[in-house]
Amino acid sequence: MHAEIVSVGDELLKGQRVNTNAAFISRVLAGIGVAVRRVIACADREDEMVAVFGEALERADIVLVTGGLGPTRDDRTKKAVQQLLRRGMEMNQEAYQNLEARLKKYGLPISPALHDQAMVIEGSHVIPNTKGTAAGMIIPCGERYNNHSLVLMPGVPSEMQAMMELTVVPYFAALSDTVILHTPVKTVGIGESMLAERLVAVEDALPSSTTLAYLPHAAGVTLMVSSIGVDREAVDGDNHLVVDAIQQKASEFIYAISDVTLEERIGEMLAEKGLRIAVAESCTGGLVASRLTDVSGSSAYFLQGFVVYSNDAKQRSLGVPSALFETYGAVSEEVARAMATGCLEKSGADIAVSTTGIAGPSGGSVEKPVGMLCLAIAQKNSSEVISKTIVVQGDRLRNKLRFGEAALRELWQCLRYCS
Amino acid sequence: MHAEIVSVGDELLKGQRVNTNAAFISRVLAGIGVAVRRVIACADREDEMVAVFGEALERADIVLVTGGLGPTRDDRTKKAVQQLLRRGMEMNQEAYQNLEARLKKYGLPISPALHDQAMVIEGSHVIPNTKGTAAGMIIPCGERYNNHSLVLMPGVPSEMQAMMELTVVPYFAALSDTVILHTPVKTVGIGESMLAERLVAVEDALPSSTTLAYLPHAAGVTLMVSSIGVDREAVDGDNHLVVDAIQQKASEFIYAISDVTLEERIGEMLAEKGLRIAVAESCTGGLVASRLTDVSGSSAYFLQGFVVYSNDAKQRSLGVPSALFETYGAVSEEVARAMATGCLEKSGADIAVSTTGIAGPSGGSVEKPVGMLCLAIAQKNSSEVISKTIVVQGDRLRNKLRFGEAALRELWQCLRYCS
Repeated sequence: MHAEIVSVGDELLKGQRVNTNAAFISRVLAGIGVAVRRVIACADREDEMVAVFGEALERADIVLVTGGLGPTRDDRTKKAVQQLLRRGMEMNQEAYQNLEARLKKYGLPISPALHDQAMVIEGSHVIPNTKGTAAGMIIPCGERYNNHSLVLMPGVPSEMQAMMELTVVPYFAALSDTVILHTPVKTVGIGESMLAERLVAVEDALPSSTTLAYLPHAAGVTLMVSSIGVDREAVDGDNHLVVDAIQQKASEFIYAISDVTLEERIGEMLAEKGLRIAVAESCTGGLVASRLTDVSGSSAYFLQGFVVYSNDAKQRSLGVPSALFETYGAVSEEVARAMATGCLEKSGADIAVSTTGIAGPSGGSVEKPVGMLCLAIAQKNSSEVISKTIVVQGDRLRNKLRFGEAALRELWQCLRYCS
Repeated sequence: MHAEIVSVGDELLKGQRVNTNAAFISRVLAGIGVAVRRVIACADREDEMVAVFGEALERADIVLVTGGLGPTRDDRTKKAVQQLLRRGMEMNQEAYQNLEARLKKYGLPISPALHDQAMVIEGSHVIPNTKGTAAGMIIPCGERYNNHSLVLMPGVPSEMQAMMELTVVPYFAALSDTVILHTPVKTVGIGESMLAERLVAVEDALPSSTTLAYLPHAAGVTLMVSSIGVDREAVDGDNHLVVDAIQQKASEFIYAISDVTLEERIGEMLAEKGLRIAVAESCTGGLVASRLTDVSGSSAYFLQGFVVYSNDAKQRSLGVPSALFETYGAVSEEVARAMATGCLEKSGADIAVSTTGIAGPSGGSVEKPVGMLCLAIAQKNSSEVISKTIVVQGDRLRNKLRFGEAALRELWQCLRYCS
């Protein structure tokens, strides 16, 4: 069984909004073996919607539409569907009661415009809206469209998501017999093309059920191993075979075989080892601390962060000797090392990571270009301080992201090999 | 002149990646009067691409394709275009030299797989790739497709964006005669529906050339005022009229009439007033410091950040009296105020902002629920410390974002009215 998604709304075509709804719908449909073949964003003009809905219904078993169900003037989805299927509208009692209860809660009357929110296309299964007023609907489209189904949902993400999870997914799960399995293999520290070279043999031996996609991020590539079939055991077997083969070829770059972030993985490792961490940041400006504390439960191992932008702050808060600035400059491995050891001392942590660099666009020189990062990692019971210099290319925000990613990557590598 | 965008890649259909490229392309095309009519995401199978490209070329003057130009095996866009247009390939010298230079920089040889990156469809205008190896191309498709154009670009956002800005936009700008003007009116501190109520009269009086879109973010709404026409002066006049009307109705929530971020606006205000800032963060974990230092030139006014997650760190780094934790708890306006004044003192800054709260999912109670934030702002030459408590609803990451936004919003409001 396969699906297409139609996202209605001029704001998508003007680039004023990114289409996150389609990604959400695709992910949850994949979980019940429904593959999405196309995603189409179209204008909220009736003629355009009639054309797009009709073409999609010819091709796909299920066409899921989001947007255009609200009470404002640019909400014309139901009108387009009436025209396409030549059906009338009917009042749905359950939807009306939901509408009434919601408005009552806010002390509002049911205006004629809002009244329409409980009107549905004739012959629909109503999808209750637990987060808003507009009713959704699953519409069996009859023989003209090979009994394919049209699903209408609001464009508001929270309303659509609740409808998918509570009604749409259970409805279609009962009808599907395909099994899909996606396994993310998360890597860091190797680029897409280098990784592809390592995996040539794996790609050559891919079972026909399975595909391998490269998803590069700011710094790091997720390998998505996807298998499809009708037999759960065969799908599982093929998928594991490919994941194992990838592990054999690139184990040193893989930080997880699941959908966790690098900071979550680092958090697990710190918790396992009983280590508490502190960070000292110059060029990353708090980003490393922020990513580490994005993880739920991070207060158990994250002690403290120092964002020390000026030399004065580096000296005052972390005790970096002023002679180091004069001799080596603020962006140097020497200063990074002094920051890391100072951070360890001031915070009482077991491990500390520091960053100092030039995010740009100004402040670079021939010896120390924009994009240069010096970082260091110090540990409590070790006299050895690791330090490293890397250079990346990008604008300020991208450099900051890659600096942060590099600090986390080095931290992860250190945690792998430290006792 | 109108366009369609085709985004190629299975990862888009599986929901593993959100289609941000389409939004970018739409925005920059709007700037030259090219309206996007449809956005289609399709699989990287050749037959599917041939069908989708062909249908789009029938409808639209310009079809822009992203993805499938890389060196890996799931990159089949050029093959599909060869089949669709029945054309061969040719080596492009400029693209080859770019490829050679890029690889040389990293000390890498040109492998056969990479060699293909400089091959283009016969009869293309090449789009140089200033950020990567795969050449892009603008392909006039001949009479069969009403002389419509096909544009091929890589899916990597930085490469595609540079191609759009340096080559594609100038190429099509020369062919378009429509004028479009978008003016963003950036607000913070008021929700979408409250703002809509204030602007009822403005919406009723909108000139026919002009539309008003509400684009809500984590906390704050951008009003996009878009005008379209063929006469530059009339378009400008209509647009300014609407922007002025919005300003009259909602001035106290507007922080900019341009595409600047709240942190950029705060940076401008700090620089104008000659104030230096420091921040003390608990629940936001470095996010406020990171946002403030996202701004180029922020080192001129950003002194220092303290990420103090534990009570011990709040005490040690900022001198928060331990009695406050016992009497009021770590999440309290009293502790927020002590953090702000301590931060001011330890950093030598002119203004300091602090956050303490419960991002969740655990740690909440009846009196202090998940989503509660206490923040404070202290200033050097003022004995008055502003403090405030807000409660938001969401998961951990969303709460953190909204906490950070709230801190910046209060800071902006304070800077507006402080001397």
